Amino acid sequence: MCALPTPWEPLRRVAVTGGTHGNELGGVYLVRHWLQAPGELQRPSFSATPILANPAATAVCRRYVDQDLNRTFTNTFLTSKAAPDDPYEVTRAQELNQQLGPKGSDQAFDFILDLHNTTANMGTSFILEATRNLFPEATFSMHLCRYLQLQSPELTYSILEYQAPGETNGLPSVAKNGICLEMGPQPQGVLRADIFSRMRALVASTLDFIELFNRGTAFPAFDVEVYRILDSVDFPRTEDGHLAGTVHPQLQDRDFEPLLPGAPIFKLFNGKDVLYDGDSTVYPVFINEAAYYEKSVAFLKSRKLTVSVPALPALTAAPTLAP
Amino acid sequence: MCALPTPWEPLRRVAVTGGTHGNELGGVYLVRHWLQAPGELQRPSFSATPILANPAATAVCRRYVDQDLNRTFTNTFLTSKAAPDDPYEVTRAQELNQQLGPKGSDQAFDFILDLHNTTANMGTSFILEATRNLFPEATFSMHLCRYLQLQSPELTYSILEYQAPGETNGLPSVAKNGICLEMGPQPQGVLRADIFSRMRALVASTLDFIELFNRGTAFPAFDVEVYRILDSVDFPRTEDGHLAGTVHPQLQDRDFEPLLPGAPIFKLFNGKDVLYDGDSTVYPVFINEAAYYEKSVAFLKSRKLTVSVPALPALTAAPTLAP
Repeated sequence: MCALPTPWEPLRRVAVTGGTHGNELGGVYLVRHWLQAPGELQRPSFSATPILANPAATAVCRRYVDQDLNRTFTNTFLTSKAAPDDPYEVTRAQELNQQLGPKGSDQAFDFILDLHNTTANMGTSFILEATRNLFPEATFSMHLCRYLQLQSPELTYSILEYQAPGETNGLPSVAKNGICLEMGPQPQGVLRADIFSRMRALVASTLDFIELFNRGTAFPAFDVEVYRILDSVDFPRTEDGHLAGTVHPQLQDRDFEPLLPGAPIFKLFNGKDVLYDGDSTVYPVFINEAAYYEKSVAFLKSRKLTVSVPALPALTAAPTLAP
Repeated sequence: MCALPTPWEPLRRVAVTGGTHGNELGGVYLVRHWLQAPGELQRPSFSATPILANPAATAVCRRYVDQDLNRTFTNTFLTSKAAPDDPYEVTRAQELNQQLGPKGSDQAFDFILDLHNTTANMGTSFILEATRNLFPEATFSMHLCRYLQLQSPELTYSILEYQAPGETNGLPSVAKNGICLEMGPQPQGVLRADIFSRMRALVASTLDFIELFNRGTAFPAFDVEVYRILDSVDFPRTEDGHLAGTVHPQLQDRDFEPLLPGAPIFKLFNGKDVLYDGDSTVYPVFINEAAYYEKSVAFLKSRKLTVSVPALPALTAAPTLAP
């Protein structure tokens, strides 16, 4: 990747994206609402841009039309020559890269908050790409997560860090910085009022945090727990590729809880249990996520670690207000 | 409808159907399992036939390919002349009608148990078509529901009766008798072990009940609560047809609970509440079911009534055993 400009400048160009997966309705309906009533995304020093990331998939209430948009923001896809038979999501990723990027360039947006829902019992999770979990971008995102946690201490928030195979491929990677907000459980194609209102409040607080930063607020150092994704575990399957069992009732809904060696992870349809044969405790996430069946993922294993986040210094020059 | 033969004969031809909606995975995976291991569906006096009702929709994990199969078993669709551009589900309904019907004929199967899942918090529900809620077919189904309730009294079961507009159109209507087993909440495209094992146990108990009946067991009269569907309520919508709000958090997940006049039913995205403006208490069901967004249904209203079910007399002649 090219060298990124220093982040210690005000964030002026911020996008909130929803419908990156067209059947995750929290972001879909928040963005549709903001497109009609954009005032909610305005702050004195900037206005966030609402973007319906995958309108074709959203129109048919599916995750995607031809391929998963949130795996399509690689340089290979983004720089490929347009062809008539391109998958829809490749064309759409290139459009978004023009609007919000280009990826890795000085012209790219400062921050993308990408809104997602999961069928897994993951509560409120923030997902950061691991290649960005370095000073200085991660420092900013970690302070954002910390700020959100402090705003509503009664809720549990989890920070999840993952490393895409090869290069970054998610929508936030188009901008200079960004994270995914993942909320669940919510079925695909369903909008729950509780998820919707919590997601909306988190977006508002995110913009408040950026505003505070832009106006010269400093944030002190802290330690935080992070779940780092290790690898995935597929369902037990029959010879023809169908499920031979499903997530064990003792594992279902226990995202972010410790899974000990020897604990049951699958219940086979023949009645037998499959036990976790690893040699150390892991923390499963995205347990029984609907969209991952086709990706051969019953759950992801993660490791819990404590990260020391340095202070986020105050901007030295006060920003000018947006016109 | 033509006159049905007397039901007071042993039930020999029984089908258990799953995947009528291809993304409701409880029935899909039970049927796939039974196709490999059919012994579970055998009883001394009969063997139930497992059928994957909509294999094309199941293969792509969608409710349907061209149209809702479970609204396609009308005489109009079933008797229409085949054409190359027929919707897939019309062709498939005709195939199933050949295999399990023909609808309304002496040759039709005796009983179809059709397996469904819902994203709504409906627990375990039995759905009967209202045109069959007459002596003698309903008597049999009601006794079946009663038997299942008595097998596991710790669970709550609900009986739901609906009247299709015009003629019957569901898969069970192809047979001489039948019901839908509806279990939730389970997201589309997800198989939960708890739902799967409970559905499996209910199917086993259903076959046990038929076996008892076939062998000459009599069942006494009883009274039971039934929820009769009245009509549906759509979401509040914007001018372009998108949602303007969603199911109110005070209504979400409260299927089968009383909804009083003046209680909130929707939370608009502008923050306002929409109140129920009916003049009598109703009992909402299928609250926020994913598949019903496109049908303009946020929930169905039902009325609760008590039905007196007459005794189910013992068969007079003991049945011969199946070969």
